[in-house]
Amino acid sequence: MANREKNIKAAAMIEFIHTATLLHDDVVDDSDTRRGSITAHRNFGNESTILVGDFLYSRAFQIMVEIGHMRIMEIMSDATNTIAEGEVLQLIHCGNPDTTEKQYMDVIYRKTAKLFESATTIGAVLSDQSKLIEDCLRTYGKELGIAYQLIDDVLDYSSSSEIIGKDIGDDLSEGKPTLPLIYALERCNPNMQLMIREAITNKDSSHSKEIFQCVIDTGSLALTAEQAQIASKKAIDALNDLPNNQFKDALIQLAKYTIERIY
Amino acid sequence: MANREKNIKAAAMIEFIHTATLLHDDVVDDSDTRRGSITAHRNFGNESTILVGDFLYSRAFQIMVEIGHMRIMEIMSDATNTIAEGEVLQLIHCGNPDTTEKQYMDVIYRKTAKLFESATTIGAVLSDQSKLIEDCLRTYGKELGIAYQLIDDVLDYSSSSEIIGKDIGDDLSEGKPTLPLIYALERCNPNMQLMIREAITNKDSSHSKEIFQCVIDTGSLALTAEQAQIASKKAIDALNDLPNNQFKDALIQLAKYTIERIY
Repeated sequence: MANREKNIKAAAMIEFIHTATLLHDDVVDDSDTRRGSITAHRNFGNESTILVGDFLYSRAFQIMVEIGHMRIMEIMSDATNTIAEGEVLQLIHCGNPDTTEKQYMDVIYRKTAKLFESATTIGAVLSDQSKLIEDCLRTYGKELGIAYQLIDDVLDYSSSSEIIGKDIGDDLSEGKPTLPLIYALERCNPNMQLMIREAITNKDSSHSKEIFQCVIDTGSLALTAEQAQIASKKAIDALNDLPNNQFKDALIQLAKYTIERIY
Repeated sequence: MANREKNIKAAAMIEFIHTATLLHDDVVDDSDTRRGSITAHRNFGNESTILVGDFLYSRAFQIMVEIGHMRIMEIMSDATNTIAEGEVLQLIHCGNPDTTEKQYMDVIYRKTAKLFESATTIGAVLSDQSKLIEDCLRTYGKELGIAYQLIDDVLDYSSSSEIIGKDIGDDLSEGKPTLPLIYALERCNPNMQLMIREAITNKDSSHSKEIFQCVIDTGSLALTAEQAQIASKKAIDALNDLPNNQFKDALIQLAKYTIERIY
């Protein structure tokens, strides 16, 4: 198989795994909207959505067999395992107002950044790059994924569902302690703390308006966005050892866009 | 890695995939009981059950990477893909009283027998057997799986949940046209046909007592069991070219047990 074909297959494989995780996530989170449309499970039911997710996982696995590269198998089997662990961890932290920043960062590395990391690492593997370049691209993918998820969690408190194409305020109503909320908890007054803790514990969004305001007033969105900027910069810095060309430029642009996006 | 270790890992890998499919199936079918216990999704919720299923799939994939055999990867990626297709097909046929025997056989080959087939084929691959022996074991696994599922579908009309360890009558109440029901539809009077067709279409089990009696009276359970016996015999016949030893004896015993089991 020509290298060009392998690259395209690898990209399709990553996309299939990504879609499979989204299908299952939307069932798990009972979400209504995804990419501006009604979610698959709302449209076709949980049954089809779970099974089509499984189907896509297995197709991704078949594509890897077609590529026929054991290192890629290894990277992707570890990635899918880590993603599943991340989703379970996230579920465990749901409803827990004592979730720490460290625990949150571990969850987003696993559930989101790991797939970015595997995708960029595979790019290096398929083109027979040195260990150094492979490590650079791994770090790039990891930090890009972290930046992406941090901004995603900011947007859940600051965008509108028309712009972002998925439900807003879901994290709070699911009792999901993301970084904006963790920061707000650390910075607000005791009364507000109690309100936020109860909202997380009881997955109760009846005080969402006050809590949203508190997240803004404590500067928690700005602080979270700052963490995203740091991750984005780390991603770009990781590219230092790569030759300067249009591909490197595109990767840099992507890391910049990730923290500027409003959807 | 020693061959013995590879065999054990391969067995664990098959078991993980099997468990993952059961976890997802019980969510999809909304089943209450499995192996005599309350199902995982009833106990821990759909969310955890879906994610733990995904986790087990990814662990199975990791184990395959540890075994490091590309042929096994190929067999298992095709198997998991076929299983997912089979589950989707089954969902499509649910509520359709015009499902044919041929369509039913296609579903059970995919959703059940394919995993048996892949397990027995891998046994041949791991021990470097000839193409002939591999084909024999593939056929054995396939026919064993078909026999197993046919008996499973008989037991859903004839056992009790205390004995079988999972819900009884589920197939009818889910509008799942399995072979006993397909045979009954072909053999009963027009009034009964109408009642069964409506029960399948509307997933309505209010007439389950009459329909169960009809399935028995038309000899549909006996006819289905006969198909299982034929498959079991095909499985045993496929072993002809294998050397006579305790392992072959065990496989023969398994094929016999499959059609004699009452749970």
